[in-house]
Amino acid sequence: MMLRSFLHLGRLGGLRASQTIKNSISLQVTHRNNQYLLYSTSKSQNVYLVYEENDYENKVDNVNKFTNRTYTCGELRSENIGENVNLCGWLEYQRMNKFIVLRDSYGETQLILKNDDDKSQKLLSEIPLESIIQIQGTVLSRPKDMFNKKQVTGEVEVRVENLKVLNKARDTLPFNIREFQKAKESLRMQYRYLDLRFPQMQRNLRVRSEMLMKMREFLVNNHFVDVETPTLFKATPGGAQEFVVPTKFPGQFYSLVQSPQQFKQMLMAGALDRYFQIARCYRDEGSRPDRQPEFTQLDIELSFTDLEGVLKMIEELLCYSWPTFHSPLPNKFSRMCFKDAMENYGTDQPDVRFEYKLQNCTDIIKLNESIVNKTKDFGAYYLQFPKEYANLSKSVKDSMSQLAKKYPNVKLIQNKISNPKDWSSKVTKLLSDKVANRFIEECKLKEDSILFMAYGDKKEVLGLLGKVRLEYVNFLENLGVTIRKKGYHFLWVVDFPLFEIDDDGNLGSPHHPFTSPHPDDVHLLETNPLKVRALSYDLVLNGNEVGGGSIRIHDPLLQETLLKMLKIDKTSLQHILDMLASGCPPHGGIALGLDRLLSFVLSTTSIRDVIAFPKTFEGRDPVSGAPSTLSEKDQKLYHIQSLNVDKS
Amino acid sequence: MMLRSFLHLGRLGGLRASQTIKNSISLQVTHRNNQYLLYSTSKSQNVYLVYEENDYENKVDNVNKFTNRTYTCGELRSENIGENVNLCGWLEYQRMNKFIVLRDSYGETQLILKNDDDKSQKLLSEIPLESIIQIQGTVLSRPKDMFNKKQVTGEVEVRVENLKVLNKARDTLPFNIREFQKAKESLRMQYRYLDLRFPQMQRNLRVRSEMLMKMREFLVNNHFVDVETPTLFKATPGGAQEFVVPTKFPGQFYSLVQSPQQFKQMLMAGALDRYFQIARCYRDEGSRPDRQPEFTQLDIELSFTDLEGVLKMIEELLCYSWPTFHSPLPNKFSRMCFKDAMENYGTDQPDVRFEYKLQNCTDIIKLNESIVNKTKDFGAYYLQFPKEYANLSKSVKDSMSQLAKKYPNVKLIQNKISNPKDWSSKVTKLLSDKVANRFIEECKLKEDSILFMAYGDKKEVLGLLGKVRLEYVNFLENLGVTIRKKGYHFLWVVDFPLFEIDDDGNLGSPHHPFTSPHPDDVHLLETNPLKVRALSYDLVLNGNEVGGGSIRIHDPLLQETLLKMLKIDKTSLQHILDMLASGCPPHGGIALGLDRLLSFVLSTTSIRDVIAFPKTFEGRDPVSGAPSTLSEKDQKLYHIQSLNVDKS
Repeated sequence: MMLRSFLHLGRLGGLRASQTIKNSISLQVTHRNNQYLLYSTSKSQNVYLVYEENDYENKVDNVNKFTNRTYTCGELRSENIGENVNLCGWLEYQRMNKFIVLRDSYGETQLILKNDDDKSQKLLSEIPLESIIQIQGTVLSRPKDMFNKKQVTGEVEVRVENLKVLNKARDTLPFNIREFQKAKESLRMQYRYLDLRFPQMQRNLRVRSEMLMKMREFLVNNHFVDVETPTLFKATPGGAQEFVVPTKFPGQFYSLVQSPQQFKQMLMAGALDRYFQIARCYRDEGSRPDRQPEFTQLDIELSFTDLEGVLKMIEELLCYSWPTFHSPLPNKFSRMCFKDAMENYGTDQPDVRFEYKLQNCTDIIKLNESIVNKTKDFGAYYLQFPKEYANLSKSVKDSMSQLAKKYPNVKLIQNKISNPKDWSSKVTKLLSDKVANRFIEECKLKEDSILFMAYGDKKEVLGLLGKVRLEYVNFLENLGVTIRKKGYHFLWVVDFPLFEIDDDGNLGSPHHPFTSPHPDDVHLLETNPLKVRALSYDLVLNGNEVGGGSIRIHDPLLQETLLKMLKIDKTSLQHILDMLASGCPPHGGIALGLDRLLSFVLSTTSIRDVIAFPKTFEGRDPVSGAPSTLSEKDQKLYHIQSLNVDKS
Repeated sequence: MMLRSFLHLGRLGGLRASQTIKNSISLQVTHRNNQYLLYSTSKSQNVYLVYEENDYENKVDNVNKFTNRTYTCGELRSENIGENVNLCGWLEYQRMNKFIVLRDSYGETQLILKNDDDKSQKLLSEIPLESIIQIQGTVLSRPKDMFNKKQVTGEVEVRVENLKVLNKARDTLPFNIREFQKAKESLRMQYRYLDLRFPQMQRNLRVRSEMLMKMREFLVNNHFVDVETPTLFKATPGGAQEFVVPTKFPGQFYSLVQSPQQFKQMLMAGALDRYFQIARCYRDEGSRPDRQPEFTQLDIELSFTDLEGVLKMIEELLCYSWPTFHSPLPNKFSRMCFKDAMENYGTDQPDVRFEYKLQNCTDIIKLNESIVNKTKDFGAYYLQFPKEYANLSKSVKDSMSQLAKKYPNVKLIQNKISNPKDWSSKVTKLLSDKVANRFIEECKLKEDSILFMAYGDKKEVLGLLGKVRLEYVNFLENLGVTIRKKGYHFLWVVDFPLFEIDDDGNLGSPHHPFTSPHPDDVHLLETNPLKVRALSYDLVLNGNEVGGGSIRIHDPLLQETLLKMLKIDKTSLQHILDMLASGCPPHGGIALGLDRLLSFVLSTTSIRDVIAFPKTFEGRDPVSGAPSTLSEKDQKLYHIQSLNVDKS
């Protein structure tokens, strides 16, 4: 028992003692002066680890501690033969009211009732599967030819001496707990407590818990302080749509925070120095697939740091907390600047697991003056896939054309190139022979390749081809062709623009208004704000953003200038301006979206599969049916009245 | 460097390796096959610990890692003399534009500018205190007679070679960061980022973070799974007032959870087996001192357990996570049943740090029939404090009389007893001579003692005398008399009644409707429900409830019966009934109120001092002023209209 405890503790501390010990030949444990010493005599170094006894009575960690069982259903081995044990769990399967498979969160154990145990056999005959039973019995060896290699407990069975029904299940449940009969998602969500019994959901939640604990460990080891910040707060100007909470003050509402941004900056001004929090955040984004109204982020901020400091910190954190069932991550993640990401991948979340980048052919295509004339910021790009990846079926073509409809200022050309020389004849309506031939030559159009070319508004061209690039590869991979490199590829995207132009021609913040401009570009703030880069960074995993952050503005005057440029009423953020003027250190931070990150780590199809009780894509709680109506009395209490309610 | 890292990791794993190593005489570190081996050759057992090198580059934990400084302001010692260092922090103090005290979260360091460094001296003359500066310089020894023993860095100073102003503070701040000039609480709250710079607040938040991490460690070591549950949920029938959140569905609202109770029970039905969460909870309790609209609890639930299992788990958890700056807690906490707590202390949160329990004198006083006739459930109790604690000033008497006004069905007698024999003459209007004399004799009224006696409605008598007991001792202790035992005294209160009677004569739940009745009392459910005990438990620390929980009902029929008895509409909890009928193991759990617990651990006067950004007692956020008005547009978005708004 001590040994087991010690191994676990060792692993927790990052010591990976188990591996060391596995390699040694003999192990001994001695107990001396409150210390357990575990050692091997087979290596040049004798003693491997010391475990100090704690003050409390029984320091052995044990999955059965504080319970009425002696073992879990995943624990018995041939070493336990002859032991008298007490097991609890779900009735997974039974045959002839005599053979039982008992299941719990940790595994399955085979039980066998005695031939003359009429009482237990009768009990068993009266309860449906999934009922909860407790048994006391003796561990026996199974006959060698009955060993079940697929079960970790497959060498033993337990002869039942006493069977107790702890809780009878209903005769029929909404669905069975059988992997091969998986119910559809809406049903799984409504009866989430049944769905959670499946090994996959068990694993998802357990891996999530472990990975979050490793993250905490890393941060605590590096002197970060876990601080809880409020969720009932004031509306953030210019942010996403926030949920509101009416109060007993007439007409006054809290907003549920969309991130702890303002609080973490105040903690820096408050000399907390190094902060983290696994924080619940809220965003009312309506019906959007794979978004949740409440979600979890790992939120980090530190003082006296810079962009390099934050990036290094996250690289180390992810290396440290990365699950051991995946290959280790590299020490350093690649980086790409926003401009290159857009130019080569048509997105700020590039999937770098495969080549086939967008190629610029603007200089050639713009020789066709009639095309260019119509467009303010003209661009022409193409993508070429070689012979071995050439498969341009009608359905692919159609779905690409469908994509292109969302980009009204772009012309998309998609061709299978049988003979490059013939290509110009296919596009006579669009390009002059001269231009088409020059393209064939300069862009090295190859035999039997697939060409996607688009021209028009540059931004739209890049956006469309970025999507075409992914869709085409998805299509090929669905056919069984492997194009993407395996594994997890993290990428930093940096040098984002500080501003963007919104539909009304106003300046907006792609990140948030507290993001620091790049010091080399501050002089451009007045003259050419769209050229100003931000000290911000996004973390992209396999083509998906999983985190982002920035170095913040610490100068109150610069912050005021930015708010003015963004047309944000400064009175709503006076507390932030005061805070920056009170002696605020330079600081920066980041937030990782944990639901999404875990969904990748666990290769689930939706983030809902890494959340214990997710809402539907409409934002409803499928278990309780929330949201629901509010009584007139409660409405009055909060000085509100519901409008537009369908009374039918 | 390796050594340091390893020690820290060891500590995290609960190994307390540092202590072991301190006791050994010589230490060596070798590096072999990716493993660092740390060993002492002075003991019979040679090697103490092995530390396996991780994949990532630099595994040394360091408070300066990821920053631009080389040391914190609390780190330099005489060993560092001669080093070139880089420090950042707040300008705490300066004299003659030459001597500086630099402060950060970790301490203070004295800096000295060179006589000819006109540039830095000018910079310094232009910035107010609390500005942020960064210096680069050389560590020097202070002259021996200038050692500052009060400062951990008091043997050294840093000669500045380069000074940079990172962020200038405003000339005058709302208050100074000086311990002796502490501002009043409302100002401290409004400018929380200034208040957080005080060492006391720094310590409070850091100890909170550490203690919560130790709790997590204990639970993870014991195979509990950290599961995040939703906060946007459905209203709980029959619970406390909950905040509501309007949605884009007209007339439909979420409620913010007051605890994860329903979710954790569903996790047990979902075979999670052992769950915990440090959970944000919400309760709209209006203006109540020392309550917060959002608060944090450590929430735990496990399957196949019983009352003994849960209590033992919490005892071990608190022993494990108890701060080392306090004396260790005992292995086992005392227990008291609810009945005894009420009878002896007049409260279910007894302060057992001092004797002077309530004494029952009902049998004597009820001989005075005229008194008894008026009262349905008559009781008479008294408290006697001996000579050495006798101090019944007019102001004490007045405040006790004030207390008594809240108990209309009680008569309170308070006397200083000069001569016991004379006492009967003092109460002639109330008690017959015979009864008074019998009381003097049987209750052993002592010379020069203080007597508080109360009779009338038994429940009120106990309530009042329970309060008198505490108030009187508080009064004495404020005068400097020590009555309470020092330290932290945890107490379990068990055997609560399952039901209480509310003002309308209906049955209510003192805990919640999912609490299991005591199995020995189930037969009384129909015949005498008020006699039924609950399998619930409260954890009381020094006379204050800091946690509570219960074994839950797992039988769906019993749950349905309970809901009926409590007149709770079962349709609102149909998902819970379905869950119990789906194969739900017996389970139980507990929640600890972390804000309150930390407030005791850190001896703060209010829970606000252990919360980074607390709300005022009215529920306002003092930093941002939230809650605030909501635009008409946003009101329309959520299909609500504000009522009773003062338009002035």
